Amino acid sequence: MATFPFQIKATEGAARTGTLTTPRGEIRTPAFMPVGTAGTVKALYMDQVKSAGADIILGNTYHLMLRPGAERVKRLGGLHSFAHWDGPMLTDSGGFQVWSLAQLRKMDANGVTFQSHIDGSTHRLTPARSIEIQADLLGADISMQLDECTNFPCTHKEAERSLTLSLDWGQRSLDAFGDRDSQTLFGIIQGSNFADLREQSAKGVVAQGFGGIALGGLAVGEGHEQMCATIDMTVPHLPNHLPRYVMGVGKPIDLVESVARGIDMFDCVLPTRSGRHGQAWTWAGPVNVKNAQFAEDLSPLDEGVDCPASSDYSRAYYHHLFKAGEYLGPMLLSWHNTAFFQSLMAEIRLSILEGRFEALRSELAVRWAATKSSPKAEPEA
Amino acid sequence: MATFPFQIKATEGAARTGTLTTPRGEIRTPAFMPVGTAGTVKALYMDQVKSAGADIILGNTYHLMLRPGAERVKRLGGLHSFAHWDGPMLTDSGGFQVWSLAQLRKMDANGVTFQSHIDGSTHRLTPARSIEIQADLLGADISMQLDECTNFPCTHKEAERSLTLSLDWGQRSLDAFGDRDSQTLFGIIQGSNFADLREQSAKGVVAQGFGGIALGGLAVGEGHEQMCATIDMTVPHLPNHLPRYVMGVGKPIDLVESVARGIDMFDCVLPTRSGRHGQAWTWAGPVNVKNAQFAEDLSPLDEGVDCPASSDYSRAYYHHLFKAGEYLGPMLLSWHNTAFFQSLMAEIRLSILEGRFEALRSELAVRWAATKSSPKAEPEA
Ligand SMILES: [Zn+2]
Ligand SMILES: [Zn+2]
Repeated sequence: MATFPFQIKATEGAARTGTLTTPRGEIRTPAFMPVGTAGTVKALYMDQVKSAGADIILGNTYHLMLRPGAERVKRLGGLHSFAHWDGPMLTDSGGFQVWSLAQLRKMDANGVTFQSHIDGSTHRLTPARSIEIQADLLGADISMQLDECTNFPCTHKEAERSLTLSLDWGQRSLDAFGDRDSQTLFGIIQGSNFADLREQSAKGVVAQGFGGIALGGLAVGEGHEQMCATIDMTVPHLPNHLPRYVMGVGKPIDLVESVARGIDMFDCVLPTRSGRHGQAWTWAGPVNVKNAQFAEDLSPLDEGVDCPASSDYSRAYYHHLFKAGEYLGPMLLSWHNTAFFQSLMAEIRLSILEGRFEALRSELAVRWAATKSSPKAEPEA
Repeated sequence: MATFPFQIKATEGAARTGTLTTPRGEIRTPAFMPVGTAGTVKALYMDQVKSAGADIILGNTYHLMLRPGAERVKRLGGLHSFAHWDGPMLTDSGGFQVWSLAQLRKMDANGVTFQSHIDGSTHRLTPARSIEIQADLLGADISMQLDECTNFPCTHKEAERSLTLSLDWGQRSLDAFGDRDSQTLFGIIQGSNFADLREQSAKGVVAQGFGGIALGGLAVGEGHEQMCATIDMTVPHLPNHLPRYVMGVGKPIDLVESVARGIDMFDCVLPTRSGRHGQAWTWAGPVNVKNAQFAEDLSPLDEGVDCPASSDYSRAYYHHLFKAGEYLGPMLLSWHNTAFFQSLMAEIRLSILEGRFEALRSELAVRWAATKSSPKAEPEA
């Protein structure tokens, strides 16, 4: 298994900025990965994703194995070619969506059997099958081990049983992955919000020898404070030389606070999902373009974001497009949000290089205080 | 009223190619105008519309007067600025959509009162109000007179009454339009499929002194043959020096046959509407990308169309995007179809210049014979 060269160029406190070098290109970290669910970042052209500043996108194993099917993607030339993205791509293992979307799922020691939320057809994922789909069929540059997503909240006993299973699946994933020159595999730490279990899981995953380390079981309704606390209890058990990835996170304030705690990589559907629902993310905070106050507002969404969708279209036009249900509304707003998230990551990287990340963090903590997630029962899909 | 310079560069039979010069740019004729219903050509960026080869787009008075409202568009800087289109723009009068979309419409000698299909609110259009909306508030380069759309089929008596009303409204439109240096107004010929009435209407409209002449009452379910017959009975009564516009037409074969009969301008929602429903128009004929046969077809939609959507994406990818309900499906296919229609118009123009239009027409008549519209009860909206 290749371990991609990860060069840390500057640090400030626990925050760090650097470059993860893959055969398909460099990933500037901290990096936010737009989610290309089913072979497309929703409502965006890939050249918009690229020019917005994204170095890497994420593909969803669950969605792609159901439609168009992983073997079909392989026959069509692999996911990069299929989705028109020639840069680095990370795929998830499918475990999270099995847990959040699939019907009638049944876990056993060797994997999970579930029914498709699309047509009810029965499928099975094992650690080895997930690797086959990700690395062999889709052709991911970075694959993720299959893990078990525990409910939140859960008991200490449940969390411990689950992380033990995930460690076992991590080893099976590594065994299935084998020797590869140009692809790597990340392990996933579980343990819910229990410090002893996060430590136990972290040490286990680190010892297994992955090319990167992810923190799973976050962005599942635990809220901003609990997310930060869980990162705090996990990062001290991680080596410096491997990239650290918090899966499914998050809001802009989550990204800033996670970077402050030493995280290097993120993914989230938020920019495009918000974009489809009229919610803009800006340097000044969230803006719902459907609000009546914008009906005749000629100002752009955010001139501080270097993207046509951010600076060339009025809020009044956005308001009209969403009121009229026009395609161009979600198209433009998903583009703007994607560019804003990349703009935020670029500023975070620069601020660490220039030794002013803590100043940026303090400013944004005040400005975006109202946008912190509260704990809730329903995780995002 | 300005009459835009219309230079005919070449003819072949009744077909002609030339340039209509407006203060906002040249329109190469025969021209197909993409429909920008409500301030956006559905699912397209305006730079895609432009680079596809469109010189002029159409805006819908009915949609815009209801949402966001014509006065609001004016306060926001006019429709060109609002919709991000700096080239020539033609607006319709609103009459067609009042007839096809509005509820509880009530005609009288001075105009039409109707209820919005969006919220049931009551509105009124008169010839003068339509001109105010189009020329003053939206800022159209080419406005259309308000006319009455007659049902198809209708009796000779109904058609005669209706065309008389439309002639009266044409005069009122001209009076309301008055003197304008940089904007023009087109009149509309009615008369259903009655040769004597089309002649009567044509002579009346021509005598009124418009800047261009439209043929109304087509693309209302009469079918391809009847459409051609109606054009044939009308064109001989038109002067050569004015542009001729068939409203709401149409399919590729309709465009070719209308050009052969001396028509210069067209508009239709077909490229974008088909694009949202998985129907591609290509040089080889229509292709429904949802058909199972395309699931693993790596060929592009049409390499003969100079557009990324036409040549850079596989039919298999289109198939997947439509099966998965992804935004990018309608986005790409509306783009391809728009580019194909512009590509067809470009080839028509070139073939007339090169004296091979009849050869092109013969070839396409055979190739696209199966795509001719049959008469039907339901007109398109
Ligand atoms: Zn998320
Ligand atoms: Zn039409």
